[in-house]
Amino acid sequence: MHKLVLIRHGESLWNKANLFTGWMDVNLSDKGIQEALHAGKLLKEEQFVFDVAYTSYLKRAIKTLDYVLEEMDLLWIPVYKTWQLNERHYGALQGLSKTTTAEKYGEAQVQLWRRSYDVLPPALTKDDARYPRYDIKYRDMDDELIPLTESLKETVVRVRDYWDKEIAPQIKAGKNVIIAAHGNSLRALVMFLENLSSKEIIDLNIPTGIPLVYNLDDRLHPVERYYLGSEEHLESKIKQVAEPDKIME
Amino acid sequence: MHKLVLIRHGESLWNKANLFTGWMDVNLSDKGIQEALHAGKLLKEEQFVFDVAYTSYLKRAIKTLDYVLEEMDLLWIPVYKTWQLNERHYGALQGLSKTTTAEKYGEAQVQLWRRSYDVLPPALTKDDARYPRYDIKYRDMDDELIPLTESLKETVVRVRDYWDKEIAPQIKAGKNVIIAAHGNSLRALVMFLENLSSKEIIDLNIPTGIPLVYNLDDRLHPVERYYLGSEEHLESKIKQVAEPDKIME
Repeated sequence: MHKLVLIRHGESLWNKANLFTGWMDVNLSDKGIQEALHAGKLLKEEQFVFDVAYTSYLKRAIKTLDYVLEEMDLLWIPVYKTWQLNERHYGALQGLSKTTTAEKYGEAQVQLWRRSYDVLPPALTKDDARYPRYDIKYRDMDDELIPLTESLKETVVRVRDYWDKEIAPQIKAGKNVIIAAHGNSLRALVMFLENLSSKEIIDLNIPTGIPLVYNLDDRLHPVERYYLGSEEHLESKIKQVAEPDKIME
Repeated sequence: MHKLVLIRHGESLWNKANLFTGWMDVNLSDKGIQEALHAGKLLKEEQFVFDVAYTSYLKRAIKTLDYVLEEMDLLWIPVYKTWQLNERHYGALQGLSKTTTAEKYGEAQVQLWRRSYDVLPPALTKDDARYPRYDIKYRDMDDELIPLTESLKETVVRVRDYWDKEIAPQIKAGKNVIIAAHGNSLRALVMFLENLSSKEIIDLNIPTGIPLVYNLDDRLHPVERYYLGSEEHLESKIKQVAEPDKIME
């Protein structure tokens, strides 16, 4: 039996301000830091030990992982960072507020962009300062891989590619893995891990800062899946991320 | 021309308490955190950018690196951790105070252990709780590689091995490298980088928290070497680490 733990980063400064974030590299809020420390304490209490960790190129996920590993006294394990675990790219919506966007495009359209499987938000143009090519992190990426916008569908493709090439072989080799990432890169992962349809994934929300534990068989099919921590805490977190007026992505 | 930056971690809780530390995994003090943040600011001001970072398995070095990278907005670069960059193993002196040790063995002997090139401190026995085999970090290490004690000479061997295999090829491939490590693992590195004799290395002390910059030619021979920051700040730091009553290792 293989163990895999997923953790979604806690509140960032832009979640707090209710702005679309995507690939914008925004820091955790104080509340986000507390969520990460709490997750680390839970994992330590339950005597989890990880051999290797994966995260995105975005500091809200990297720092969440660092806080977790520090609480667990595991700062020394290998940590691999990749753009392929980044949050979904939110195109030209990145940096806009929920209110502005709803006023401009209508509430229904915004909900479609946020919750549908394959509807793309408006794309960035390549002269936009938010185009990832202008960010040093992505300087080695092929032009055709750099997104101008993404739906969950595109996010699934890149997360799955990294999973197949890098993460799955480590798990099969017997390593205990933790992945610290984002609302939509983790939904993408859960979608193919649990073999969910594009309809089933719509209603799946992963709460922030709560370790999601999978027991996987040798073919990496989930045998068991549970959240760590108390029922009440979990309930309140799930409610929070499902609020239609709260942007956490 | 290749750029290499070395940084020695700042004050740890045991430096503050004047205890021999070695491989004991002690956290930074608040002052140590401030030293790391200051180093990060200096490197950012001077517009350094790193492609890859190396550090030890010990949290005082890992966290120093993390604070530096966070200040520089470079948390996303690859970080490799290795026991081979650990502080020199201080054998049975680890956890003892300078005062206790001087009372037990005499001041002259203590200075010999601290400053000679090849005099070994008293060794641990394998049933000692401080034997690294009992620490999860070293569970995959071969028995014959796990030290019971080390002089600077043994430290040089393992640091050089890692340098040759892992770090030098990256620098030769054009990567800008930062190494965050310890008083003696960095002295070891400087010794073979600058081709110093076992006599010359005795008097070389690297101040804590001050980036040490090397410009290296294509054969990785130093062409230039300087510390970042103001003269006065540097002078006071050098004085501090050279104090015979202060243990910083």
